[in-house]
Amino acid sequence: MRIGVLNGRTVIVDGQRAVDVADASNGRFGPAPAAVYDAWTEFSEWAATAPTPNGTPYDSSALENPVPEPRQIFAIGLNYAEHAAESHYAVPEFPPVFTKYRSSLAGPRGEVELAGPKVDWEVELVAVIGRPAHRVPESEGWNYVAGLTVGQDISERETQFAATPPQFSLGKSFPGFSPVGPVLVTVDELADPDDLELGCDINGEQVQKGRTSEMIFSVPQLVSRLSHITPLLAGDLIFTGTPAGVGLGRTPQRFLAAGDVLRSYIAGIGEIEQTFVQGQ
Amino acid sequence: MRIGVLNGRTVIVDGQRAVDVADASNGRFGPAPAAVYDAWTEFSEWAATAPTPNGTPYDSSALENPVPEPRQIFAIGLNYAEHAAESHYAVPEFPPVFTKYRSSLAGPRGEVELAGPKVDWEVELVAVIGRPAHRVPESEGWNYVAGLTVGQDISERETQFAATPPQFSLGKSFPGFSPVGPVLVTVDELADPDDLELGCDINGEQVQKGRTSEMIFSVPQLVSRLSHITPLLAGDLIFTGTPAGVGLGRTPQRFLAAGDVLRSYIAGIGEIEQTFVQGQ
Repeated sequence: MRIGVLNGRTVIVDGQRAVDVADASNGRFGPAPAAVYDAWTEFSEWAATAPTPNGTPYDSSALENPVPEPRQIFAIGLNYAEHAAESHYAVPEFPPVFTKYRSSLAGPRGEVELAGPKVDWEVELVAVIGRPAHRVPESEGWNYVAGLTVGQDISERETQFAATPPQFSLGKSFPGFSPVGPVLVTVDELADPDDLELGCDINGEQVQKGRTSEMIFSVPQLVSRLSHITPLLAGDLIFTGTPAGVGLGRTPQRFLAAGDVLRSYIAGIGEIEQTFVQGQ
Repeated sequence: MRIGVLNGRTVIVDGQRAVDVADASNGRFGPAPAAVYDAWTEFSEWAATAPTPNGTPYDSSALENPVPEPRQIFAIGLNYAEHAAESHYAVPEFPPVFTKYRSSLAGPRGEVELAGPKVDWEVELVAVIGRPAHRVPESEGWNYVAGLTVGQDISERETQFAATPPQFSLGKSFPGFSPVGPVLVTVDELADPDDLELGCDINGEQVQKGRTSEMIFSVPQLVSRLSHITPLLAGDLIFTGTPAGVGLGRTPQRFLAAGDVLRSYIAGIGEIEQTFVQGQ
């Protein structure tokens, strides 16, 4: 199942057609996306069995952030060995965790203001929590995930490293720095949810390419580790880290410029696209 | 004005009496606390002029977290010079910022499970945002603050320093690690909101004592700095940092034990009290 948001309302998308969830369920679920995640288990059961209409044609470029109101956002640093190396950090024993503030969330397409001189890209798989999770064993981790989507952990490196210890959270939370989408894809849609190709290109030139099977901490390991510390809530996001190829790790370093178009994709899920514009 | 929450409903408290805001405003504000913060400007104007009933007697020990549903939580590290020194960090040029995850929020009184071997105390002034703030100048900072409350930034030091760079956010987000209350006090109630005594004691022995005038970054400076990076939203919390005297900085180090009672206060606002119990 592929879940999107159009005009603030949850839809199930299938090819070129979209079904309005609130209408099809006679108001039982939604229309607000948060309401669907809060009742995710019941919603999934309904969606699997209820007769739904064929839907109506829709404009895929109008899809909005499928999870716009998370109560908690977790972001994992250094979760690919080659990216840890290019960042001059050791491969972590525990996943280092920061947040991306909710004000930085955005939909899958749009303009992003260059908030500083060193705006960098980080394509990431984003896992969305489907039910409250506290002290979940790793073997159960996937059962707490509603689905997966594509994210960019856009980062302004000057702000990120302006404080000691470095403040990953702030440097990655300027407006528009956390685009996600285009849809949430449930795990059953993917042949192997632990091994997805992901990457991004700038103006057509590929700059990152990896596979989620290279993650040091897998999605179920992250759900387990995080939930042993702080209870996860339905609709929470986990940005799971980025593979090698960011601008900070290049020689010479490279950062985004006005006019650049950044396209990020995960095979089996979809792609998002941001255009960068000059800041104030 | 002093704002509390009883049974999930916003109340204005005055001495031993409480007025239910939703009832007194004929449903215009609340009862949910988030609704009151989302309409804070209109609510404050109403509260200042509307004839309100005298209220009814209430049990102050039943007061709950006055701001239970913040969309963003900012926490400031090293905001008092003596605490930076005892933590072996330099006095910061910029305020280092992390989050406390929402699952860790709790009301002003209750039990907290000892989540690890090194559970430490950090009394803090907590500022609550009253209207959306983006790129606010320092001189306007206080105008975006709904009020102030008492918080504890309880911290498990092993988890905090288990990753590199250190993960302040996770080590400070076990359940119950972010108690706040007992009420939100509007700034006009305080003779000098930039100079409040704060402290905490364990089983009656004072362990921290300071004044908010010692903060390296004042509340209006923090509102300005943060809002220039990520837009602040009504109901957001800023934990503004802790003065010297935490357990990590002592020789020998000292951490909380089962049965310890931690009382934290800010003069003019009130006090909160947590009792620590053995973890699983």
